Amino acid sequence: MIIVLSPDAGPADIARVVARIEEMGSRAHVSQGSERTIVGLIGPDAPELQDMFETMPHVESVHRVTKPYRLVSREFQPASSVIDVGSGVRVGGEQLAVMAGPCSIEDEAHIIDTARAVKAAGANILRGGAFKPRTSPYAFRGLGEDALRFLATAGHETGMPVVTELMSVRDIDTVCRHADIIQVGARNMQNFILLDEVGKAGKPVLLKRAMSGQIEEWLLAAEYVVAQGNPNVILCERGIRTFETAYRNTFDVNAIPLVKELSHLPVIGDPSHGTGKWGLVKPVAMAAVAAGADGLMIEVHPSPDHALSDGAQSLTYASFAEMMRSVSPIAAAVGRTLPTGASVAAR
Amino acid sequence: MIIVLSPDAGPADIARVVARIEEMGSRAHVSQGSERTIVGLIGPDAPELQDMFETMPHVESVHRVTKPYRLVSREFQPASSVIDVGSGVRVGGEQLAVMAGPCSIEDEAHIIDTARAVKAAGANILRGGAFKPRTSPYAFRGLGEDALRFLATAGHETGMPVVTELMSVRDIDTVCRHADIIQVGARNMQNFILLDEVGKAGKPVLLKRAMSGQIEEWLLAAEYVVAQGNPNVILCERGIRTFETAYRNTFDVNAIPLVKELSHLPVIGDPSHGTGKWGLVKPVAMAAVAAGADGLMIEVHPSPDHALSDGAQSLTYASFAEMMRSVSPIAAAVGRTLPTGASVAAR
Amino acid sequence: MIIVLSPDAGPADIARVVARIEEMGSRAHVSQGSERTIVGLIGPDAPELQDMFETMPHVESVHRVTKPYRLVSREFQPASSVIDVGSGVRVGGEQLAVMAGPCSIEDEAHIIDTARAVKAAGANILRGGAFKPRTSPYAFRGLGEDALRFLATAGHETGMPVVTELMSVRDIDTVCRHADIIQVGARNMQNFILLDEVGKAGKPVLLKRAMSGQIEEWLLAAEYVVAQGNPNVILCERGIRTFETAYRNTFDVNAIPLVKELSHLPVIGDPSHGTGKWGLVKPVAMAAVAAGADGLMIEVHPSPDHALSDGAQSLTYASFAEMMRSVSPIAAAVGRTLPTGASVAAR
Amino acid sequence: MIIVLSPDAGPADIARVVARIEEMGSRAHVSQGSERTIVGLIGPDAPELQDMFETMPHVESVHRVTKPYRLVSREFQPASSVIDVGSGVRVGGEQLAVMAGPCSIEDEAHIIDTARAVKAAGANILRGGAFKPRTSPYAFRGLGEDALRFLATAGHETGMPVVTELMSVRDIDTVCRHADIIQVGARNMQNFILLDEVGKAGKPVLLKRAMSGQIEEWLLAAEYVVAQGNPNVILCERGIRTFETAYRNTFDVNAIPLVKELSHLPVIGDPSHGTGKWGLVKPVAMAAVAAGADGLMIEVHPSPDHALSDGAQSLTYASFAEMMRSVSPIAAAVGRTLPTGASVAAR
Repeated sequence: MIIVLSPDAGPADIARVVARIEEMGSRAHVSQGSERTIVGLIGPDAPELQDMFETMPHVESVHRVTKPYRLVSREFQPASSVIDVGSGVRVGGEQLAVMAGPCSIEDEAHIIDTARAVKAAGANILRGGAFKPRTSPYAFRGLGEDALRFLATAGHETGMPVVTELMSVRDIDTVCRHADIIQVGARNMQNFILLDEVGKAGKPVLLKRAMSGQIEEWLLAAEYVVAQGNPNVILCERGIRTFETAYRNTFDVNAIPLVKELSHLPVIGDPSHGTGKWGLVKPVAMAAVAAGADGLMIEVHPSPDHALSDGAQSLTYASFAEMMRSVSPIAAAVGRTLPTGASVAAR
Repeated sequence: MIIVLSPDAGPADIARVVARIEEMGSRAHVSQGSERTIVGLIGPDAPELQDMFETMPHVESVHRVTKPYRLVSREFQPASSVIDVGSGVRVGGEQLAVMAGPCSIEDEAHIIDTARAVKAAGANILRGGAFKPRTSPYAFRGLGEDALRFLATAGHETGMPVVTELMSVRDIDTVCRHADIIQVGARNMQNFILLDEVGKAGKPVLLKRAMSGQIEEWLLAAEYVVAQGNPNVILCERGIRTFETAYRNTFDVNAIPLVKELSHLPVIGDPSHGTGKWGLVKPVAMAAVAAGADGLMIEVHPSPDHALSDGAQSLTYASFAEMMRSVSPIAAAVGRTLPTGASVAAR
Repeated sequence: MIIVLSPDAGPADIARVVARIEEMGSRAHVSQGSERTIVGLIGPDAPELQDMFETMPHVESVHRVTKPYRLVSREFQPASSVIDVGSGVRVGGEQLAVMAGPCSIEDEAHIIDTARAVKAAGANILRGGAFKPRTSPYAFRGLGEDALRFLATAGHETGMPVVTELMSVRDIDTVCRHADIIQVGARNMQNFILLDEVGKAGKPVLLKRAMSGQIEEWLLAAEYVVAQGNPNVILCERGIRTFETAYRNTFDVNAIPLVKELSHLPVIGDPSHGTGKWGLVKPVAMAAVAAGADGLMIEVHPSPDHALSDGAQSLTYASFAEMMRSVSPIAAAVGRTLPTGASVAAR
Repeated sequence: MIIVLSPDAGPADIARVVARIEEMGSRAHVSQGSERTIVGLIGPDAPELQDMFETMPHVESVHRVTKPYRLVSREFQPASSVIDVGSGVRVGGEQLAVMAGPCSIEDEAHIIDTARAVKAAGANILRGGAFKPRTSPYAFRGLGEDALRFLATAGHETGMPVVTELMSVRDIDTVCRHADIIQVGARNMQNFILLDEVGKAGKPVLLKRAMSGQIEEWLLAAEYVVAQGNPNVILCERGIRTFETAYRNTFDVNAIPLVKELSHLPVIGDPSHGTGKWGLVKPVAMAAVAAGADGLMIEVHPSPDHALSDGAQSLTYASFAEMMRSVSPIAAAVGRTLPTGASVAAR
């Protein structure tokens, strides 16, 4: 950590900073410039220390020089993680993960039918919501455990692992009983107790980026899970909130290559939430794969204008199949493959 | 709800929209313009319907014309709510609520000493963190139930109700046992299960705005609590996340008068988080009160450069007292009073 | 335009709105709902009318239902524009436009050398800055007209049209004398006098999106140019300003397919500014092309750590050539070609 | 400037950074930490150097430690600037500046009538637009020089200095002939040629913050003007662009005390643009003054629902007078006065 003193700092101010550093068991290194004095802290530079030093008199700015996350970083593990999510599917390797399915599970027939359709078009993981975060208390909030059972059945029938959102520690056992991958949604990216608990539960975790989550905060959220002994975290870029009102969210394509540079964890793209408009899903899915994403998460509904949630961003079976056909040559261009069987569907 | 069709929509497209409206039991009203046809939906216009119609062919845009919240709106209750939080303190009336105390409770002596100092300077509610949301898993996360006991003792000794953050439904009974006001933090504004549960618990709730929470989402979060039968919600503006990096957050002063226009709930300002820099706390506190805030929430620490969290935005006892002296004439200018006793301290 | 009155609006309030509409020569259409009255304005709905109606008593909200731009819209011209920029290069057709070169032109040898290198790697348009917008008045601001002459020479020697930024109407004649494409930079997207003047000048215009420019504002800025009789506008997405601090800007990949849906104008991507970090330029260039961009604009410098500006986001000759090799199969996957000769370089 | 090398940097990488520093005539100071090596650059740290070093191999981050502006800083001039704008009005002293008038000047009678009304209510500077920046090319763009003449007449008749926006260097002589204060609008905050020219013109300048202008960029824009020998710059906070759609802009109240801490220049608040809703103008004006603003800029129109621009945010004469009455005790609370005569109107 580097502490920059203001030009009017005197010897007593410098001594106070040095004393505070030594009080914490670290070493100080003072460098007198022409205008400003700079004190280096040699030792661990936890984020809270930045706060502390910023309150001291005549301290102008404080700069951290190390990254606050460790276990999820490429420095800690140079090789990319490949995560086994069951039924022979691995996320982070050459084969792309394609998670598809409805926003909300509406009944058993609905999810089984959708599972078959997305599988035929090349998906290898089934998604579906049982507990739905809804902005309004009066909106449909999911079928709960019934939906989980339907989802598990549909996954079993089609041979796909299933992913679903866990909204609260209250439901962790229920969700773990039925799901192969536990999704932590954007609104819960910094629900730290939930992160601790999914870390302990041990199942693979799909961690979505918060609407206003900075890359560093997102990686620290992953660090929460991994620090509990669960290394199986898949990151998911799902669009951020900006000033632009032409789409629900702005898909942050920069995040994909940057996260892959900073971390060994796999990262997938969710263009359904990342745009909020079904007409943009296909081109943004193609962009995500071109930028290096390890997979995609796509909302698919047999009849989006009858969906109980997120209809505006859902693809029909036909448009999902068309998206897969368009993604296929992009995947090939970056040396990736679509899930087995998909190449057939993609011709 | 108003559904605007694109210029190339034909009679079949219009008929499809009308049929969908009637299928839901609402009535449709078609208005043929020179360039576009507009269909009005007469009936409840839930947010999810907007999604549905947006997916239909040749629908160009969909506009909601009613507000999605009801119980928290001024239309529902024209008179401002005044919330009794215990020990004779009421929030939302002529007297401002001043919540002050440390970010984290560090030990019993620390919180009792701080309670006495802030009370002497004019605070009427004691704040203190027992469960702390921390960006990094390696940061100090609060003393938990021990801290709650210290806080309750300090509140009891100084005659002030106490407010503390509840981070998870897991701890709701523990927190309710010790606290007078349950704080739902910015990161949990859309933790909908938590909102349901604090709604059922019945204690007054302090609901902070999320870092990227829109006013409408914030009021809907309050609606979650009220819809469970708990009308005692105090809103708290604590700064939003913008492109500006010169402060941790941007205090959104516009939100205060707008929320008071849209809702009957009281709203207070938190300039400590709203700026992240102790040097800006006093002027922004003054601005919040001038704009019509029903109170303030301020971080105070006996020695901010030794605080275990949020030191950079904490006031010392002396600077808090000075802030209160500066707020006092602003309060008078807008026809408000500071808590009893404060006027003495404020001279 | 649709004017929604608040629930407490009486007959006199409705009559006032209707009278105001008729005073402007438009027709009003009143629709009485159960809770609210809605008045439709049948006639042109200029943006300033929205303001007007919003000030009227008991008006709750006003919704525009037509788009404020016309000449640049797909409704006006369904076929995509293909723009001839000279030397046989066309932007918007099957062949991608690849504009490459240094941020600032430093001397004649520098720009000629760079021109040869980018041409060899597959660029077909040469970029280079003569007048540089710089945040600080003390930074290097470009060589001015000398640089324009060097740029024209380099374009001539390599057979490439040249693009350079015009910062002020003051320099319009000078820039038009030397450049084939006039760039209007992000900071000038709403410099309306400049837009008028480049509209009159008639040369092809490269219009960058402002750092906080909404899609609708960007298209209206293009409308300014086209309304002066100059249809040759190329749009350029160059990243927007968000809360994320890990990169200089956030490349908005959603904008590419949306703009192509709303407008017939070509749109290219600038991943150099869109990321601000050279390590992210290649993957984001690939993403832009996958999403449907009609071309790329890339900063290239022989020795980025000696560049007089924007070094951090510049590619070396070698990394630009590598980028082109990586973009090549993506272009093929979306049915596009790289400039003639590039396919050779790209093997 | 501090250059942090990545953990894998070897002696050759460090030597390369040191050599580059010495090549530029500065001195390097190497500090070897346990994990990372840090090199301090002792000498001027221009922003472009940050870019340069960021491109060098194994450089992880670069931190500037000095501020990039100088003449506008409090370090350079500790005493607050007080700017004489003519007719005995001074901005930045004890008396607040109150600039009021219509968005656009519509005819001579209109501006004279408005001038008298705002003067009677306590304004001391008259504002009015002659050249209007409009998002759409089809909107009313101001009456140009005729409007300037009307404005000057109205200022003369009421004894108030006048302020109006200059949109282009093309019109600088015309505007300087009629105006006492030259306004540089938000969209031109980084129109650097315009800044240079108003710097040379010598008249007092009102510099609005850009919609996405960071504080540092804003102060650097002011530095452009001052560096040309014109020290008379008044800063104006007018709201920033955020994710919130409930108001046109978000008034950034934090900016007021921070700018006054960093710079000696006066700063005023514009709650008309800062909210975009007339109902929020009064409380936000009060907040701005409470936070330390040196004045206000307010849009006033005799009949906002007939205004040719910005009607939604304009006050009527009556509501402006009421605003002044409400601001008056806030001004007193912070030790400021309203313009002479206003105190009478304010009772």
